[in-house]
Amino acid sequence: MASEPPTAAVVIIGNEVLSGRTPDANLQFLAQRLALRGIRLREARIVRDVEEDIIAAVDALRRHCDYVFTTGGIGPTHDDITAAAIARVFGVALHRSEEAARRLRLHYGDAGLNPARLRMADVPEGAALLDNPVSAAPGFRVGNVFVLPGVPMIMRAMFEALEGQLRAGPPIASRQVSAFTTESGIAGPLREVQDRHPTVEIGSYPFLRGGRFGVSLVARGEDADAVAAAARAIAAMLAQAGIEPIVDDADAAG
Amino acid sequence: MASEPPTAAVVIIGNEVLSGRTPDANLQFLAQRLALRGIRLREARIVRDVEEDIIAAVDALRRHCDYVFTTGGIGPTHDDITAAAIARVFGVALHRSEEAARRLRLHYGDAGLNPARLRMADVPEGAALLDNPVSAAPGFRVGNVFVLPGVPMIMRAMFEALEGQLRAGPPIASRQVSAFTTESGIAGPLREVQDRHPTVEIGSYPFLRGGRFGVSLVARGEDADAVAAAARAIAAMLAQAGIEPIVDDADAAG
Repeated sequence: MASEPPTAAVVIIGNEVLSGRTPDANLQFLAQRLALRGIRLREARIVRDVEEDIIAAVDALRRHCDYVFTTGGIGPTHDDITAAAIARVFGVALHRSEEAARRLRLHYGDAGLNPARLRMADVPEGAALLDNPVSAAPGFRVGNVFVLPGVPMIMRAMFEALEGQLRAGPPIASRQVSAFTTESGIAGPLREVQDRHPTVEIGSYPFLRGGRFGVSLVARGEDADAVAAAARAIAAMLAQAGIEPIVDDADAAG
Repeated sequence: MASEPPTAAVVIIGNEVLSGRTPDANLQFLAQRLALRGIRLREARIVRDVEEDIIAAVDALRRHCDYVFTTGGIGPTHDDITAAAIARVFGVALHRSEEAARRLRLHYGDAGLNPARLRMADVPEGAALLDNPVSAAPGFRVGNVFVLPGVPMIMRAMFEALEGQLRAGPPIASRQVSAFTTESGIAGPLREVQDRHPTVEIGSYPFLRGGRFGVSLVARGEDADAVAAAARAIAAMLAQAGIEPIVDDADAAG
């Protein structure tokens, strides 16, 4: 029997996203990269820089998903509290990783390794370091929880260095058909297409493009042939309703 | 005694965000508008179009926050299941709102009011309708949960029509000082500034701009004078370290 596809959750740690100051810039990257590996992203949470909130989110999600990825809060400043929170999730102490300290010393030099920088070597006991190809300060993994930085460029480089550790799942095939029409005009026949293709998940996403409303209909599933058949059925349904599909569909996704 | 500031949570419902297909386009708007009203956004969750997942997120958050806002899943297609999920959260039935049906009939005309469109008039018993100034189909409110559409333009118009219902809180004052420096170079003195200004929350946000690393230091709090004093202390701390602040600070926020 094939094993179940692996699942994941993301926890974005940052007051600045919840205050509206900064748009999150990490979720879509992680969502896309996990999808490419056939890992199902089940949920994402955005929480404050508050230890109890981080603990509650990570602890709930790590029990339900194969992998949890956190972003943010592992820098050198006083508001970086993710490492302490993750230690508490696993009931272990924070300790100074000699290997992390060695990497920081290489990067900053002996004279530059001030106490704030050394703080980035404090990780939960039992953590495995994650390589930081950009700026030396490592992320870390405890159990099924991967703790990544919030700066997108560094987070991405670290993810690319770690993704080989992740169990891959069957890829999800996806086909999209878009048209300038309304959801409510096609909802009835679309439901019939969904009912006839139960192994495929059909999503309907309205968009506004150049002042015109349209709909992107997306078929997704593990069976690429079934997905292709569902996409053909969607196109036939539109044709029968006298609705032209948008040929250049790639940027109708907005 | 002043009452506690109101709190809020956001639940974004949409497979398309978790699959990486579409970036969320609603959270930052809600975060900013809630902040303007002095409402503290505590958490956001992004969940699948799965009834159990929607129920779990909304039910957990409505107990901890004064307001919960959901976006997505209230259109006419088969994958729009938010109304049914919210009904289950509150243990009530879905029923056809005559007022919602009337609004849809006005918009689409008798002939245009097909079953899919009428489905958008099905709301939980006891729900209060939320005006949709753009496309007639209403959102709704049950208890402290506001159910909004996912299309950003419509969600925004609906939020603007409802926000007068929300209890306002004391505004949060915010001051930002940025510089091309590293977090780890200033983390020590920054912590001292934080310790001397305990009523102000100081956040440190690294950024990359034109290939140079920098840091935005943000002081936030209810007491505008205290926030201003903390910002002056941050500027003085940078000056003492020989670090020039960025004068045109507005777009250093990236």
